[in-house]
Amino acid sequence: MSEILDRLAETLEARKQADPQGSYVARLYAKGLDAILKKLAEEAAETIMAAKDGVREKVVHETADLWFHTLVLLAQQGIHPNEVLNELARREGVSGIVEKASREEGA
Amino acid sequence: MSEILDRLAETLEARKQADPQGSYVARLYAKGLDAILKKLAEEAAETIMAAKDGVREKVVHETADLWFHTLVLLAQQGIHPNEVLNELARREGVSGIVEKASREEGA
Amino acid sequence: MSEILDRLAETLEARKQADPQGSYVARLYAKGLDAILKKLAEEAAETIMAAKDGVREKVVHETADLWFHTLVLLAQQGIHPNEVLNELARREGVSGIVEKASREEGA
Amino acid sequence: MSEILDRLAETLEARKQADPQGSYVARLYAKGLDAILKKLAEEAAETIMAAKDGVREKVVHETADLWFHTLVLLAQQGIHPNEVLNELARREGVSGIVEKASREEGA
Repeated sequence: MSEILDRLAETLEARKQADPQGSYVARLYAKGLDAILKKLAEEAAETIMAAKDGVREKVVHETADLWFHTLVLLAQQGIHPNEVLNELARREGVSGIVEKASREEGA
Repeated sequence: MSEILDRLAETLEARKQADPQGSYVARLYAKGLDAILKKLAEEAAETIMAAKDGVREKVVHETADLWFHTLVLLAQQGIHPNEVLNELARREGVSGIVEKASREEGA
Repeated sequence: MSEILDRLAETLEARKQADPQGSYVARLYAKGLDAILKKLAEEAAETIMAAKDGVREKVVHETADLWFHTLVLLAQQGIHPNEVLNELARREGVSGIVEKASREEGA
Repeated sequence: MSEILDRLAETLEARKQADPQGSYVARLYAKGLDAILKKLAEEAAETIMAAKDGVREKVVHETADLWFHTLVLLAQQGIHPNEVLNELARREGVSGIVEKASREEGA
């Protein structure tokens, strides 16, 4: 599963050059940070509502929306998702190998 | 980087058997869904505030907190993070190989 | 200042009969509870962002948006804002006269 | 019902001089803006969850919590709730008398 976040990060990076007319993400970048943060709040709320509804597919769908918009935020801030994963790994004590691997792949 | 989310999912699964006295996550499970969702809202807000502060390390730190608590939610709902990643991959059109791989590893 | 929340509550009640085409609030009612809650989350986030920006007029504006959408939620749930004010009064120990007044006006 | 928000605003103003040891609100002020905003996000989430649960008393209770913490934010920012009510009145076209009254009472 490893490559999905990497590929998304690449795609989101590439969209910084895209025409806002033709791309949802390019439009979000053009609107700026507050628009991205507003979407993040909205998707967090929708994840909460999906969980309260207890509908499994909705929880998957809304969590995907929430993660997607955090990835947009990270891209806009010039942060690679690996930095967040490394932070999670560090806390959980599985850091050693991971950080080494991440350095080797130049992340 | 692939294994971090997998390892976290395993750890969070294992904590379902842990003593709430000794584990933050076991305590969250014991408090139930609303307590988890409240933390998710709180971490989303802290991510927003970190981005408004424009402090890169805080954005990394708070996004890690947000992702961590969505992983706790997924675990509590019996959803593996790969399901969310597959949903993201499906949308981005990088689905083929990933879903195949994920089926092969029995996810 | 007393009558503003009362008048808003009346207006929001009346909008339940309005054409969704012609009224923002009627459109929100028609979309249902989740749409109202999503707006509430969005306005809470915008209030937070306005406070982080430290721009006084934006804090006033966004708090008004947030209160407005909680009033829409209350109306949709058949709850008069006086019930919320009475709850606040009760906690603050100024309840006696207020609750009596509210009973007399049949709220 | 008019006086409740006024009295709360007065109380919250007075708490600025209170000992953080003895008062929840004084403690929030001492922790600073981010702590207040975090509570606001939390109470917004709890209002959303209460509405999803469909339990009327919980909606009243959580909306009271949400309004209370917006009043704490307003106090911390040196904004009287009448400014927010006037903004709401202005939008709803009931502004004239209200703003005049508010000017007369020096709000």
